[in-house]
Amino acid sequence: MSAASTRVPQQERSRATQARLLEATVDCLIEHGWSGTTTTVVAARAGVSRGAQLHHYPTKAALVTAAVAHLAERRADELRTEAEALPAGPQRLDRVIDLLAAAFTGPLFVAALELWVAARTDRELRDALMPLEAMVGREMHRLTVSLLGVDERRPGVREAVQATLDLLRGLGVANLLSDDSARRTALLVTWKRQLATLLTP
Amino acid sequence: MSAASTRVPQQERSRATQARLLEATVDCLIEHGWSGTTTTVVAARAGVSRGAQLHHYPTKAALVTAAVAHLAERRADELRTEAEALPAGPQRLDRVIDLLAAAFTGPLFVAALELWVAARTDRELRDALMPLEAMVGREMHRLTVSLLGVDERRPGVREAVQATLDLLRGLGVANLLSDDSARRTALLVTWKRQLATLLTP
Repeated sequence: MSAASTRVPQQERSRATQARLLEATVDCLIEHGWSGTTTTVVAARAGVSRGAQLHHYPTKAALVTAAVAHLAERRADELRTEAEALPAGPQRLDRVIDLLAAAFTGPLFVAALELWVAARTDRELRDALMPLEAMVGREMHRLTVSLLGVDERRPGVREAVQATLDLLRGLGVANLLSDDSARRTALLVTWKRQLATLLTP
Repeated sequence: MSAASTRVPQQERSRATQARLLEATVDCLIEHGWSGTTTTVVAARAGVSRGAQLHHYPTKAALVTAAVAHLAERRADELRTEAEALPAGPQRLDRVIDLLAAAFTGPLFVAALELWVAARTDRELRDALMPLEAMVGREMHRLTVSLLGVDERRPGVREAVQATLDLLRGLGVANLLSDDSARRTALLVTWKRQLATLLTP
């Protein structure tokens, strides 16, 4: 075999190993929280040797940050795909808010919140996470604007989108310990009406 | 000395010991987070013996739950006092929202969020915290209604107050890792206007 043909499978194996580590990290964060997530537990869960794990992600901060970035990207793709199936017209706003509310009560939100809170008192994690937080925040805003099909240059639109995302973040936290879906659904019925008014030219 | 006269100072000493333990717990949660808060560290910080600490709060879950309940009560009292100094009239709503926004970015919010997130994966803490979470949520809602001086029986008022508190919770989380005050202030200017419309009969 030539050097080129052995390199490709090796790159593929590396990518597969990384993907397994990142999925195992997110599962671990969701199941055991930040303090129960150790690189040893993640490597075992992923079926990856300690050596390979350390090679790809040398620290816990590097591993969890990469895992949340990976999941954020996957979730954004899923949201885009789900949104393609949505109807145009006035119903679209309702359905977009439902998709976003599902994202803010789903596994990515829970895993990210574990990191955000831990990063407050962990300098290494904080340094790794700050650029990611800023990027995910911007991406989420851009995605929402695009899913809603609104024009941010119109006055009030930017603020309405921001308030929606902050509200959904708050609702995500309210859902952490108990199922808050009945209250959330009722509250979002009202919010959707307000938002439609705010976004209508 | 009679039994009655020795009992009173002893009760006072107990209350003072408890207060010192609860304040030290909150400080510890803010400074070191959930995983860095141990009953040993708290006892040392409060200048209380391990024996006395275990006598008053036998478990970490009991200690941190009592600490957050204690702080929530103190913050509610402070909010009521601060609100008494507020003007009546249209400016009042603005100032009430500012007070609440300060509460949702202050030490109680940070300490409570540490517990809420840890409780998701810690059954003992969760069982201790659930009744407190429900009570604090109800109290915060009631306090907001009373500070705003609105009538919840009017349609839409209850939902508007709920959305305000969920929005503020989301803004509190957005402020965890970096100072988000400029964005928050701008967003709340818009929110106050909307809220005034929603609450005006």
